[in-house]
Amino acid sequence: MKALVLTAPQGPQSATVTERDTPVPAAGEVRVALKAAALNHRELWVSLGQYPGMQLPAILGADGAGVVDAVGEGVDADMVGREVVLYPAANWGDNPDYPSPEFGCLGMPYPGTLAEYICVPADAVVAKPAGLTFAEAAAIPLAGLTAWRCLTTKGNLKAGEKVLITGIGGGVAIQALIFAVAMGAEVYVTSGAQDKIDQAVALGAKGGVVYKQEKWGKSLAALAGSVDVVIDGAPAVSFAEYSRCLNMGARVVIYGPTGGAKFQVVAPELFFRHATIHGSAMGTLDDFRAMMAFVAERNIKPVIDSQFNLDQAVDALLYLQNDHGMGKIVVNI
Amino acid sequence: MKALVLTAPQGPQSATVTERDTPVPAAGEVRVALKAAALNHRELWVSLGQYPGMQLPAILGADGAGVVDAVGEGVDADMVGREVVLYPAANWGDNPDYPSPEFGCLGMPYPGTLAEYICVPADAVVAKPAGLTFAEAAAIPLAGLTAWRCLTTKGNLKAGEKVLITGIGGGVAIQALIFAVAMGAEVYVTSGAQDKIDQAVALGAKGGVVYKQEKWGKSLAALAGSVDVVIDGAPAVSFAEYSRCLNMGARVVIYGPTGGAKFQVVAPELFFRHATIHGSAMGTLDDFRAMMAFVAERNIKPVIDSQFNLDQAVDALLYLQNDHGMGKIVVNI
Repeated sequence: MKALVLTAPQGPQSATVTERDTPVPAAGEVRVALKAAALNHRELWVSLGQYPGMQLPAILGADGAGVVDAVGEGVDADMVGREVVLYPAANWGDNPDYPSPEFGCLGMPYPGTLAEYICVPADAVVAKPAGLTFAEAAAIPLAGLTAWRCLTTKGNLKAGEKVLITGIGGGVAIQALIFAVAMGAEVYVTSGAQDKIDQAVALGAKGGVVYKQEKWGKSLAALAGSVDVVIDGAPAVSFAEYSRCLNMGARVVIYGPTGGAKFQVVAPELFFRHATIHGSAMGTLDDFRAMMAFVAERNIKPVIDSQFNLDQAVDALLYLQNDHGMGKIVVNI
Repeated sequence: MKALVLTAPQGPQSATVTERDTPVPAAGEVRVALKAAALNHRELWVSLGQYPGMQLPAILGADGAGVVDAVGEGVDADMVGREVVLYPAANWGDNPDYPSPEFGCLGMPYPGTLAEYICVPADAVVAKPAGLTFAEAAAIPLAGLTAWRCLTTKGNLKAGEKVLITGIGGGVAIQALIFAVAMGAEVYVTSGAQDKIDQAVALGAKGGVVYKQEKWGKSLAALAGSVDVVIDGAPAVSFAEYSRCLNMGARVVIYGPTGGAKFQVVAPELFFRHATIHGSAMGTLDDFRAMMAFVAERNIKPVIDSQFNLDQAVDALLYLQNDHGMGKIVVNI
């Protein structure tokens, strides 16, 4: 089969589309003939070796959708032919609060989705929602799962509450926007560019603030008042500004370090407001199933920026590395 | 009646023990003839005007225990004669997650416990545990309630988990130590002085670290490994050291600003560990009832440093203001 294989941690150009043995499903596994994959910044970090526990060579790609074409021992043969979306990780473990040491993503350490075939545990696939194409379904898993757990398990977002989502160009941020709007929340965003805020408003946001202006927290306060939940992948450049807008009982959920690792907290702002700061990363298989059920029931569509073929997968990574449009980059297979 | 009244926000010496009208219970209230009160640093902040929403003159004191001696309209007359402990605040409101704008403590804005009598809502008193003297019962409410909510509602501490309690000289810290030991946790402490760590070990702690040594986080790691819960009233001087010791799924609970308001968080440490930082302040009436039930059932005793009479209440405040021993300062009435 063809697959995008990274052999050295020297950036996207050190990955190549090459021939690999087609995997054979082990006991308890299904093999999925992939129809579409999607990119995340994770592939760039992995290609640069900037990830704990690097193991090379690796087939890249965490997001995928396709058709089951073979099953291993002990798996119902009726699964063959099913259209499915893949849980983008494996081995979370028994504790829903945090993953086990064996936890990892598809696309390093586990084989990835930028390939013609992949084998995964039979319980780690869910039915592709009928209203989504393979490309749309593949655009959801990793960013969607991260956003879902931030909003629900961690943020406990309720209809009618106000939520701030920082850096609305990013994949997690856009998916969080789409989910939060569908949940009946009042959504505000930040971005470096007004046109991305305009696109967020078209997707249902109430408004947004350009974070390149000084003291943008004051503009946010004027626009939104106080907020109940924050979904933030860039606390180093955001927390100090929005912290003045936290409501009593606010939940801040941090999922990324864009713009720097460190941020400063004012303790009395935290305890007099009875506020909470959660760290969150990806999510459990149960989170994934709950998210996909919500996607199917509410006919949620992701935002797709552009599409490539598997032969162009390195070009797709380079496109991701440069500043691109708003939404996911899909690789059709 | 006699009461300790603060008339100007100029420190403990601007409070005096004077005559005030004995209060009459309104509908739904009980009057308690106080037998003992206890001090918290809150009284010092209030005496210096360092508290939001200052209202003077004020009868100081949040902690109290005594005997019901009169009831207002609609309250069962059988309550007269009951030995009770007082919920140290009022008007939390309907949302258990955070208090309403009307929420406040006894001892400013509401009348305090450093007095011969106080009127409070009939449902805001609970039976004094039979195993405690009035002095012991009065030593628990505010510090105990704060510690209880940090450990349970916020920290979700489970038996067998490791908990770090910073600044073990403080009232909340000592009470958190006593509760955590009774809950079956493995408790570690920090203090500026080895003798306080020794006293903490006598109360059931496994060990502790003197925070005046440089890089004490490394000593903590060597002593405790990683910790599951942190109860911290001094994050500005503590967080950067213990953050390296946070376990996966750790819960840090911040309840005070001793040593400075600001602390720095490393975002990846938070999200890769799926850790949470909670702000917490006091607690609900339900938290208070649950804590007092635990105190009665487990025969919990507070640590008392020293005792004064009501006529010496200003001396007691001055003693609190200076560095004193370990435990609560009780004022017998």
